[in-house]
Amino acid sequence: MGADHAAEDHDLQVALVRYQSWAATTGARAVVVLEGRDTAGKDGAIRTLTRHLAVRQTRVVALPKPNPHERSQWFFQRYVAHLPAAGELVIFNRSWYNRAGVEVVNGFSSPEEQARFLNDVPGFEAMLVDDGIKFVKLWLDISRDEQAARLESRRSDPLKALKVSPLDLVAQENWDAYSTARDTMLSRTSTPVAPWTCVRADHKKRARRAIIQHLLHELAPAEISGDISVPDPDTLFRFEASAIGDGRLER
Amino acid sequence: MGADHAAEDHDLQVALVRYQSWAATTGARAVVVLEGRDTAGKDGAIRTLTRHLAVRQTRVVALPKPNPHERSQWFFQRYVAHLPAAGELVIFNRSWYNRAGVEVVNGFSSPEEQARFLNDVPGFEAMLVDDGIKFVKLWLDISRDEQAARLESRRSDPLKALKVSPLDLVAQENWDAYSTARDTMLSRTSTPVAPWTCVRADHKKRARRAIIQHLLHELAPAEISGDISVPDPDTLFRFEASAIGDGRLER
Amino acid sequence: MGADHAAEDHDLQVALVRYQSWAATTGARAVVVLEGRDTAGKDGAIRTLTRHLAVRQTRVVALPKPNPHERSQWFFQRYVAHLPAAGELVIFNRSWYNRAGVEVVNGFSSPEEQARFLNDVPGFEAMLVDDGIKFVKLWLDISRDEQAARLESRRSDPLKALKVSPLDLVAQENWDAYSTARDTMLSRTSTPVAPWTCVRADHKKRARRAIIQHLLHELAPAEISGDISVPDPDTLFRFEASAIGDGRLER
Amino acid sequence: MGADHAAEDHDLQVALVRYQSWAATTGARAVVVLEGRDTAGKDGAIRTLTRHLAVRQTRVVALPKPNPHERSQWFFQRYVAHLPAAGELVIFNRSWYNRAGVEVVNGFSSPEEQARFLNDVPGFEAMLVDDGIKFVKLWLDISRDEQAARLESRRSDPLKALKVSPLDLVAQENWDAYSTARDTMLSRTSTPVAPWTCVRADHKKRARRAIIQHLLHELAPAEISGDISVPDPDTLFRFEASAIGDGRLER
Repeated sequence: MGADHAAEDHDLQVALVRYQSWAATTGARAVVVLEGRDTAGKDGAIRTLTRHLAVRQTRVVALPKPNPHERSQWFFQRYVAHLPAAGELVIFNRSWYNRAGVEVVNGFSSPEEQARFLNDVPGFEAMLVDDGIKFVKLWLDISRDEQAARLESRRSDPLKALKVSPLDLVAQENWDAYSTARDTMLSRTSTPVAPWTCVRADHKKRARRAIIQHLLHELAPAEISGDISVPDPDTLFRFEASAIGDGRLER
Repeated sequence: MGADHAAEDHDLQVALVRYQSWAATTGARAVVVLEGRDTAGKDGAIRTLTRHLAVRQTRVVALPKPNPHERSQWFFQRYVAHLPAAGELVIFNRSWYNRAGVEVVNGFSSPEEQARFLNDVPGFEAMLVDDGIKFVKLWLDISRDEQAARLESRRSDPLKALKVSPLDLVAQENWDAYSTARDTMLSRTSTPVAPWTCVRADHKKRARRAIIQHLLHELAPAEISGDISVPDPDTLFRFEASAIGDGRLER
Repeated sequence: MGADHAAEDHDLQVALVRYQSWAATTGARAVVVLEGRDTAGKDGAIRTLTRHLAVRQTRVVALPKPNPHERSQWFFQRYVAHLPAAGELVIFNRSWYNRAGVEVVNGFSSPEEQARFLNDVPGFEAMLVDDGIKFVKLWLDISRDEQAARLESRRSDPLKALKVSPLDLVAQENWDAYSTARDTMLSRTSTPVAPWTCVRADHKKRARRAIIQHLLHELAPAEISGDISVPDPDTLFRFEASAIGDGRLER
Repeated sequence: MGADHAAEDHDLQVALVRYQSWAATTGARAVVVLEGRDTAGKDGAIRTLTRHLAVRQTRVVALPKPNPHERSQWFFQRYVAHLPAAGELVIFNRSWYNRAGVEVVNGFSSPEEQARFLNDVPGFEAMLVDDGIKFVKLWLDISRDEQAARLESRRSDPLKALKVSPLDLVAQENWDAYSTARDTMLSRTSTPVAPWTCVRADHKKRARRAIIQHLLHELAPAEISGDISVPDPDTLFRFEASAIGDGRLER
C-alpha cells in the first residue's frame, strides 16, 4: 500500500508538471487561496505542491502584516498586485481572508471593516473568475488535539522556531472563537463561482494528496486530469452549510 | 465680470488648497476619473486643478497602452496599483473606461471583454466607495464643430504636436460611434454610489470652474465648500437617462 | 523686449515638444535631477518645463519621506524604481541628494550614511550614464533676501499653504549650514559624466528660460537644439570648485 | 557515516533557523547570488537551504526574460526592485550575471552591453555591500560527463519536463564556450568585497552541505556559526585566478 501511494504520488506530481506545461502554452491563469487553522499544514502542502513546478511560472505569496501606508489603501490593493499573468499559478499562503479569521479573533481590525470584507469578497472574487482566472479556495482544518500536539512540537523543535508566533500561545484557548469565525467566513464567502473546499488535515500525506487531486480536477483539462482519482470525500469536500454543526470540519 | 471671475477662480484655488490640507490631516482619499471625448480638455482641466496642490499628495495617472504581460492580467490590476493612500488625491486621466470607449469604437478588445467590463465596473467601484474612498467620475463632452476646430488647431500648432494621434484623423468620422459608446457606458455605469457627472466643455474656462466647484462639493467638508457656488447646471449636471436623446451632451 | 521673450519662450516650448517626439522615435531616455535651496523655484520650473509635454512620456517624481521598510532597504532602491524606460523623461523634484542637503542640516541621517552617500553617488550615476541615459543635474539657488521674501509670501498667501513646512521656520537661520552642505555636495558629486549645473534663480522667468535652453542643448540632437541660444552665463553655469567662496551661487 | 551526515545536516538546518531569528531581531540583510552551469543543482540547493526558513522573511527571485519595456530600462533596475529590507534573505536563482553567461554564449545581448556589464558590476555590488547588505556569490559547476547524464535524465524524467529548455540541446556542444565565459566573468567580477565562491557540485548532497556551511560562516554571527565545520575545500573554495587553467572547476 505504501508502494501504491508512492506510485500515486509520483503520478500526481507528473500531472502537475503536465498541467503547468499546458498552462504555459495556453496562458491559463490560476489562483489558489490556502487558508486554515494554525498548524493545519499550509506550508508543507505548498512545498509538496510546488516540488517540481517551474520557479518562473509559480508564485507563492505570503504577505507580511500591512504597513501603515498599505493599511490606508484599498483593502484588496496589495493582494491584487500579485494576481497571475498568462501561464502563472499564484498560491496565496494566507490571503485577504486574514480579515475574517485572525483579525476577528484578535481584534486586529474593526467590526465594520470585517463586515465590509464579508460583503465585498464575493463580488471581488467573481470579477477574477469572470476575467478567466481559475480560482480555488482551500480551508485546511485539524482536530483540537492534533493542533495541541503540533503546537507542542513547534515549541520544542528548533527547526520550527521560525514558525512560533505569540498567537500560538492562545490558539488552543481561542479554539472556539476561531471555529466561529471560520463558520461565518465559509458561510458568507462560499459562492457558486468561488466555493470553499474543506480539507481534513490531521493526516498530512492524505491531505496533500487530496489537495493535489482536487487542484488537478479544477485546473487541468481532461486530457491531464482524466486519470486522476477523485479526492477521498472524508478528507476533502466542498463546503456546505450543513458542515457547520455536524462537526465534520473538526472531527 | 472678468474681474469677478478672476476673484472667483482665486477663491476656488484657495478652497482646493484648503481641501488638501484637510485631507492630509484626516487621511481622506479621493479618486477623480476624468474621461471624455478626444480634445474635450482633460489635460487642461487637470493642469488647472492641480496648479497649487502638493506634488507629494497628488498623483495624475495616465497609463500607456497595456503591454502583453499586463494584457494577460486581471483587467483592473494595473489601475488598482495607483489607488490612493491616506491623504492622497489620484486623478485618472483616462482610465479603465477606455474599454467602453476607444476600444469599442476601434475594436481594440473583443465584444465579450467589453460586455464583461460593463458588468464588472459597478461592483468594482462600489467596493472602492465602500472602502471609504471618495469617488468622482467626470465625462467631458464638446460639440462636433468644436472638436473639428480643436483637431485642426492640434494639427497646425507645433506646441500640440505630442497630442496628435492616428485616432484624431477619424475622430470626426467616428463621432456617432463614440456617441453611441458613450451613451451605453454612461447608462450602464452610472450608479447611485458612483454616478457620472457630465460637463459641457466647449467653453474651457467655464468647464474648469464648474469641475472645481463640483469636486469641492463632493470631496471637501462643509467648512470648506460651504461658500462655494454650485456649478452652473448648463455646464455640469449629473447624468441621467433622459440626457440620451435630448442632445444635452452635445449641444 | 517682453514680446521678444514671449517669442523666445514659445520657440523653447516648441523645441521641447520636438525633443520629446524625437525621443519617442529613438527611445532616448533622460533623467533630470532638480535640486536647490528651499523656495528656489523647483516646482514652477517643472511646471513650465512640462507644460506641453506628453503625460504618458513624462514623469515627475517627488518621493515622500521613506517609510521604515524603505529606510531599511538599499538607499537608492526607491529611486531606481522610477528610472526611465525608452522615450521617457523623468524629472526628480528633489532626489537622492536629500541625503547631502536637508538630512545633513537637520540630522535626519547619520554622518556615516552621509559620508557613504558622497562616496557612492558618482559611481551610481556613472552607471546610469554608461547605460545610455542622458543625465542632467540642476542646482537652483537664490539670495538670502530673496528667500526671506519668498518664505514670507508663502506664509501669507493661502494658495501656497501646502508648501509651508516646519523647516521653513529655520531655513533662514540655517542659511549658512545649507550653504556649507551644498558646497560639499557639489564639490564631491560633480563629475565629468554627471556634472552639476548651477542656476541663479532670483529672477524666475530668466532661470526657467536658461534651464530649458540648457536641457535642450544637453538632451536634444543638433537638428532641434541648433537654433537655441546658449543660456545666459550669469544665470546658468557649470559648477566648478572656484564657485565656492567667490559667492557666485548666492550673489 | 550516513547517520553522522544526517545529524550534521540537522544541525546545519537548525543553525540556518537560528540565523534567521537573529536577522529578524537585528535587521540583518543578505543577498545570495546563485549562479552556475545548467543542471548544476541551483534549484535543489535553494530548496534545501530554505526548507525551514520563514516564508515572510525569505525571497527566492527567479526573474523571467525581460520584456521590451524592461529591456529599455537601466540593466540592473528590475533586480534592484528585489533587494532585501531589514531581516530579509534574498536568494537570486540566476541573476544579473546572465549577461555574462548565457547571453554571451548565445548572443542574446551585444558585446558592448556585455563589456559594460563587466565594468559596472564591481561598483554596483560594492555599493550594496557598503550599504550593509551581506553579499554572497556562489558559482556551481559540474563535470562535462555529469552534465550529460543530468541532461539525459531531464529529457527522460516527466517530473523534470518543466526544466527542459531549448538551450539544453546545445549545452554540451557549447561546453567550452560556457567555460570561457565563466572564466571571464569570475576573473572580472570577483572582488575583495564581493568575491566569488566556487562549488564543485557533482555530488549534490556534499555541495549543498558546503553551501550551507559557507553561508553560515558568511552571514551569521560567531555565536551561531562557531560550531559549524568549515566547508570541505575540495567542494567549495574562493575563486582565484589560478583556478582557471588548472581545471579545478570542472574536475
